[in-house]
Amino acid sequence: MQRIANLLVIQDGQVLLLKKPRRGWYVAPGGKMEPGESIYEAAVREFTEETEAVPVGTHLKGVYTMVIKEDGKVIDEWMLFTFAASGLLGRPAEENREGVLEWHPVSSLQTLPMAEGDRTNLLFAAHQAGTQYGTFTYTPDFSLIRETIQYSDGGVKANGTD
Amino acid sequence: MQRIANLLVIQDGQVLLLKKPRRGWYVAPGGKMEPGESIYEAAVREFTEETEAVPVGTHLKGVYTMVIKEDGKVIDEWMLFTFAASGLLGRPAEENREGVLEWHPVSSLQTLPMAEGDRTNLLFAAHQAGTQYGTFTYTPDFSLIRETIQYSDGGVKANGTD
Repeated sequence: MQRIANLLVIQDGQVLLLKKPRRGWYVAPGGKMEPGESIYEAAVREFTEETEAVPVGTHLKGVYTMVIKEDGKVIDEWMLFTFAASGLLGRPAEENREGVLEWHPVSSLQTLPMAEGDRTNLLFAAHQAGTQYGTFTYTPDFSLIRETIQYSDGGVKANGTD
Repeated sequence: MQRIANLLVIQDGQVLLLKKPRRGWYVAPGGKMEPGESIYEAAVREFTEETEAVPVGTHLKGVYTMVIKEDGKVIDEWMLFTFAASGLLGRPAEENREGVLEWHPVSSLQTLPMAEGDRTNLLFAAHQAGTQYGTFTYTPDFSLIRETIQYSDGGVKANGTD
């Protein structure tokens, strides 16, 4: 099963996003975990490879089960680990082989084109305390079929919502 | 790739552990995630199935990459998601088909027989703020070869240690 780690850096009211050329959708920099890596190591490595800058204050914000369904049948499932960071060492590259790197105001996470589940988890990472959990079910072309979310606020109390 | 979720409840200075008959080793109640479940759903479901009690204040404490190596070669790899909870609804069963359920003082996590990596992550879950990440590499009979740990304290700052 594939494991993906990504990282949203939030610095001076802005977030660093990667604009992918095919659809023009925005994502947080990240990529596939390597065998034996921890999720933290993978998030920092992938972010640094993609941006040429090193995240500071890296911490986990969400763990998501990602499901692709076609004609009612599950055709793929993987795990997504979303981290946030509070700053950067170094100046990020302007582009990489995946697309163009752009700073945007945090509020633009509400409106920039992206997968709807990504919007849910990046808004959580940017604005909420605690940790989010959930399952996103998509069609093969990333139209969101269903999302189920739970969260905890870091240990004091927790709620599951569906 | 297998995904395992477990949960350590800490209530009145005690932790609820499952003693497995084969080696007499203690574990936190838990088990395999089902397809499409979130890690939170899996931890609560598995804990409830194994104890007949419902955890309260459930929150993620650690995410671990688990590797089994034999003769220098990786023969298995899976993910472990360790949650903590601050209380229980209901009175736990005294045993289940996996073993015997026992309350022990939190301090006994230092000394009870268990896999060494489990000791690292249960001590963290019981005593530390924030979230822990890491990789545990074991022999096929669960002798710890290596552990690599990172942590974050919940967003204010974070450090990687190895």
